[in-house]
Amino acid sequence: MERERSEPTSEPINGNFSYLATAREQRPSLGKMLFAAERFLLAKIMQAFGNPPVHVVLWNGLEIPNHNGDTVARILIRDRDALFKLFLNHELNFGELYSAKRIEVQGDLLDFLEAVFRVWPLPTQDKAIDRLLAPFIDIRNNTITGSRHNIQHHYDIGNDFYKLWLDERMLYTCAYFPHPGASLEDAQIAKMDHVCRKLGLRPGDSVVEAGCGWGALAMHMAKYYGVTVRAYNISREQITHARERAHAEGLDGKIEFIEDDYRNVKGKFDAFVSVGMLEHVGTDHYRELGDVIDRSLKDEGRGLIHTIGLNYPRPMDAWAERHIFPGANPPSLAQMMQIFEPHDFSVLDVENLRLHYAKTLEHWLQRYEDNAEQVTRMFDEQFVLAWRLYLAGSLTSFKTGTLQLFQVTFSRASNNRIPWTRQYLYEPGYQPVGGTDEHM
Amino acid sequence: MERERSEPTSEPINGNFSYLATAREQRPSLGKMLFAAERFLLAKIMQAFGNPPVHVVLWNGLEIPNHNGDTVARILIRDRDALFKLFLNHELNFGELYSAKRIEVQGDLLDFLEAVFRVWPLPTQDKAIDRLLAPFIDIRNNTITGSRHNIQHHYDIGNDFYKLWLDERMLYTCAYFPHPGASLEDAQIAKMDHVCRKLGLRPGDSVVEAGCGWGALAMHMAKYYGVTVRAYNISREQITHARERAHAEGLDGKIEFIEDDYRNVKGKFDAFVSVGMLEHVGTDHYRELGDVIDRSLKDEGRGLIHTIGLNYPRPMDAWAERHIFPGANPPSLAQMMQIFEPHDFSVLDVENLRLHYAKTLEHWLQRYEDNAEQVTRMFDEQFVLAWRLYLAGSLTSFKTGTLQLFQVTFSRASNNRIPWTRQYLYEPGYQPVGGTDEHM
Repeated sequence: MERERSEPTSEPINGNFSYLATAREQRPSLGKMLFAAERFLLAKIMQAFGNPPVHVVLWNGLEIPNHNGDTVARILIRDRDALFKLFLNHELNFGELYSAKRIEVQGDLLDFLEAVFRVWPLPTQDKAIDRLLAPFIDIRNNTITGSRHNIQHHYDIGNDFYKLWLDERMLYTCAYFPHPGASLEDAQIAKMDHVCRKLGLRPGDSVVEAGCGWGALAMHMAKYYGVTVRAYNISREQITHARERAHAEGLDGKIEFIEDDYRNVKGKFDAFVSVGMLEHVGTDHYRELGDVIDRSLKDEGRGLIHTIGLNYPRPMDAWAERHIFPGANPPSLAQMMQIFEPHDFSVLDVENLRLHYAKTLEHWLQRYEDNAEQVTRMFDEQFVLAWRLYLAGSLTSFKTGTLQLFQVTFSRASNNRIPWTRQYLYEPGYQPVGGTDEHM
Repeated sequence: MERERSEPTSEPINGNFSYLATAREQRPSLGKMLFAAERFLLAKIMQAFGNPPVHVVLWNGLEIPNHNGDTVARILIRDRDALFKLFLNHELNFGELYSAKRIEVQGDLLDFLEAVFRVWPLPTQDKAIDRLLAPFIDIRNNTITGSRHNIQHHYDIGNDFYKLWLDERMLYTCAYFPHPGASLEDAQIAKMDHVCRKLGLRPGDSVVEAGCGWGALAMHMAKYYGVTVRAYNISREQITHARERAHAEGLDGKIEFIEDDYRNVKGKFDAFVSVGMLEHVGTDHYRELGDVIDRSLKDEGRGLIHTIGLNYPRPMDAWAERHIFPGANPPSLAQMMQIFEPHDFSVLDVENLRLHYAKTLEHWLQRYEDNAEQVTRMFDEQFVLAWRLYLAGSLTSFKTGTLQLFQVTFSRASNNRIPWTRQYLYEPGYQPVGGTDEHM
């Protein structure tokens, strides 16, 4: 990688170069050594990111042009310490520096992220290395207390904030777009129907929901599928909101919202459903979750888990894990099987909806940008930048196949009251049919 | 468990009791000891089978009535050595003794097997015990030479035999019944269409098929989807038959049938498909299979693996592994992921069709029974019994959820030319659409 003197650019760099000029006048050799060090660090950083096609500008006006194909963005690094932090831990510190405006991305953020995600070498799968690194990876443990802390960090930052950019029912999980042009509102309803159909809900069924968000799915099931729901969540703000809405809609007798951990689920149910909770459970606790499902599900019960997933196990992006979703860790499909295998559950259906999550995030990001000023007033500019990066980064992860979205439907092995084919899921005049006939 | 003197039965027991009478006359105490030993062994055997509701009759006319609910069958054990063999290894030896008519099942074989499968404690999942037992479990290694030997054991026993009870196109894998009453012929065509649709085949595509049986799918793809196929198989009888059929249908230029191992696949293809081969690959070789797929699949290629599977890893039934399918070992879903994870393949869709395999086996067993006399002439009575037990046992395994049938569709992580939803799979006027549009 070659370093060049900067051409005058349209965007002035606001760095303070005076210390550098002084250094160069007094001791030119130190200046040269610094330049060499900066060039070395930057080359290493770019290598760690897979050499994406970006043009880099340093605080001192030096420019490092892109030699990796069509340039997607100009990256401004605003101080030497930022460069050093990127070198030390590019994955963790890029987000922190971006949120603090010590790194700026000039150009389309999504184009930039996509270019990076297409070349970024993801963490190794080498188990030996994972074991060595494990003590240094800062994953918050999802014990009952730990989970409560982790969940409140993310979900209790204010319902008003989420209202700004989620759909009107406040579903904070991947929607299902019957066609790519569907509205977010319609796609979230279609997602709930897709889940209910997969579960084969029948009027009078009892359902337990683990991790119910703001209660939209519980209400949809109770209202349109005639079931009773016991819904668990450890986010106080969410469950308070859910209770108010259910009460306003006259659903008090149909849904019980319980502020408690999934590990404390009690009762026997016709269906178990969990949409967007597994990401927070932690793979170490999958066996516990399996035990909970096993003791809650009737013999002919059906279950569905909807979760962000991975093609192979790796730790979550360090920045997002620290600043956005403490304790989160999406599973690979093989890891998910730790829930099902010990209890001889049969996986009936897996659907990967990652492009639907990319589309969902396109909608969220658009609404977020439309309301960025209000978010700034609610929090501050650093928060706006962090959540912009999180939403844009998530969108890009699903678009590039770095993240997956799995819907996994299951039942007990011996249960033959399962749909004969999946055709009924796609019939326009759908009537709940799953499980109405015993086959064989 | 109580032992009683037999009431006169309609079926005389043909055992030779003379040695027993002699023993009893001369040394009554030895007789008593023998009875006690027999009772003890039988109790242990019944316990190992989970105490199914059967009435047992021994060679000497002694009867051990059923105390476990409605009796589904009378089991005749025709000699003391048979009892001892059952005690030593009930899983392996039941099939051998049944085939040799040293054990008889009076009553409906399927009812009997279902009753057993519903109570039989399946092998433990304990890895430590598995490791201890591994050296004693006789799994033939699926090296290139080993695989050839194992496959020929099963598939090269004569095309004429399989013609007696398979559908007219000779598909020896789970069919797909659009409705339970569909004919086997229609269900096998529907299965091939289901696979082709999942693969999103387009005219002009190139397809590699690993393990092509008698060539029906390769011919279907070439004829109705306008693709070229390179199909691999190590069963000489099958591939000879496949070539003859393709030639007769004028498909020589569209399909290349290659008598070789999947590990020797050469070329780059738009689609990879394997229906009913993975059972024979052996989990130790999944990584190799993944490498083969990785080097054969174009960037926007799609893949499908159709295989018998398990809810959790366990060795195959010892008798079937020894006498019917040497080297076979159906995987759990987590084990299958060893194919996909190392190469960052995305699993797009998993469908469990176990009840369709039970239905397929119902058809096969019916046709087999209709032709039992001819099978006896081709082979002998022992063969007829062994294959009856294998077909009936397989049917029961799928019906009771002891075996699964997984269709797993996948592509490279970065491939966005994937179907937007699965709706197109279920549209009556289907035109190949998968992969025609780039989404996102």
